Amino acid sequence: MKLHGYFRSSAAYRVRIALNLKGLTAEHLPHHLRKGEQIAPDYLALNPQGLVPTLEGNDGSVLTQSLAIIEWLDETHPNPPLLPGDPLRRAKVRAFALAIACDIHPVQNLKVLARLRQLGLPEEKVTDWAAWANREGLAACETLIKGEKGPFCFGDAQTIADLCLVPQLANARRFGVDVSGFPRLLEAEAAAKQMKAFADAAPDRQPDAE
Amino acid sequence: MKLHGYFRSSAAYRVRIALNLKGLTAEHLPHHLRKGEQIAPDYLALNPQGLVPTLEGNDGSVLTQSLAIIEWLDETHPNPPLLPGDPLRRAKVRAFALAIACDIHPVQNLKVLARLRQLGLPEEKVTDWAAWANREGLAACETLIKGEKGPFCFGDAQTIADLCLVPQLANARRFGVDVSGFPRLLEAEAAAKQMKAFADAAPDRQPDAE
Repeated sequence: MKLHGYFRSSAAYRVRIALNLKGLTAEHLPHHLRKGEQIAPDYLALNPQGLVPTLEGNDGSVLTQSLAIIEWLDETHPNPPLLPGDPLRRAKVRAFALAIACDIHPVQNLKVLARLRQLGLPEEKVTDWAAWANREGLAACETLIKGEKGPFCFGDAQTIADLCLVPQLANARRFGVDVSGFPRLLEAEAAAKQMKAFADAAPDRQPDAE
Repeated sequence: MKLHGYFRSSAAYRVRIALNLKGLTAEHLPHHLRKGEQIAPDYLALNPQGLVPTLEGNDGSVLTQSLAIIEWLDETHPNPPLLPGDPLRRAKVRAFALAIACDIHPVQNLKVLARLRQLGLPEEKVTDWAAWANREGLAACETLIKGEKGPFCFGDAQTIADLCLVPQLANARRFGVDVSGFPRLLEAEAAAKQMKAFADAAPDRQPDAE
């Protein structure tokens, strides 16, 4: 398999964690997002959205969208599972993951921040925007799991929720957000980061890290 | 069941279609988003994100995030299915749905547009922003399914992809986007709109429609 990504992309980071948890190896093909390599014609032919990640399977299949890729990995390589078995619990885990993947990450991604700059917003306001999306979103995430037993987001094993949380917390800190008011999120992050699968997927461990 | 929604929310619209397809009835509880009813304390206790939809099950369970709700409906009420059986096809359908649910809708939702106004952007630029998010996103969606047989997004039956597409096309038109360059999307929309489940879920058919 080939994983098209970028060391700092939190969506690619989620998929790197999933591959590691499943014990799968992939050739990592970095695309430098700040240099616009994700909108090169060859890459757009694979991923019309011009986003990372894209996973190319050994059979030539091309998968896009991190959560779709992760659900596919979970369906085709069930161990260890990344979703609970009970439908209601699955819905809770997916809702947490989507609260990050839909309502935080895309609002603070490179494309949106570039658009804000085009509108004439000074850099300070652009960073404020990204910090706002992370702060508001993570506060809601903390509430979503405050009644859940730890140490992970949902109990004693990692799920898709943790795969989304760890990269998003990294983004939040990068934008200067004080995350100390989110004890459940930090507990889950700490549990995850003790695992080699998460540690090896970190941005600063990737070959294209700057 | 009770569905907390808003006639014009495209995320609530997706869930209305799913309930109709599954032959399920729910009491519809509208929250007027432009009046801020979604951030009333009683509602935030159900949905900490302050977003619609929220689905309350008959057993008191509370589900948030439209795609998590729809996957739960599909797992607990399998007929008609909203995802194909093959994992690779499921991944393709989910990627299309997520391209809308992550990368178009949240970038043009009420909360983000309100934030742009707070930054001093004139109304014309706010509408430009929403139109941009729809135009770019839908162009990528058209490419994602241009090689797929119709009439629906993925073949001869509706999937989660169509549940996301129909509400998003309604948004795009509301923001003045010319969608005539997206023939596959329009073909899928036309097929879906012939179905009573889609027609009955339309914003103008809801009790809180203005």
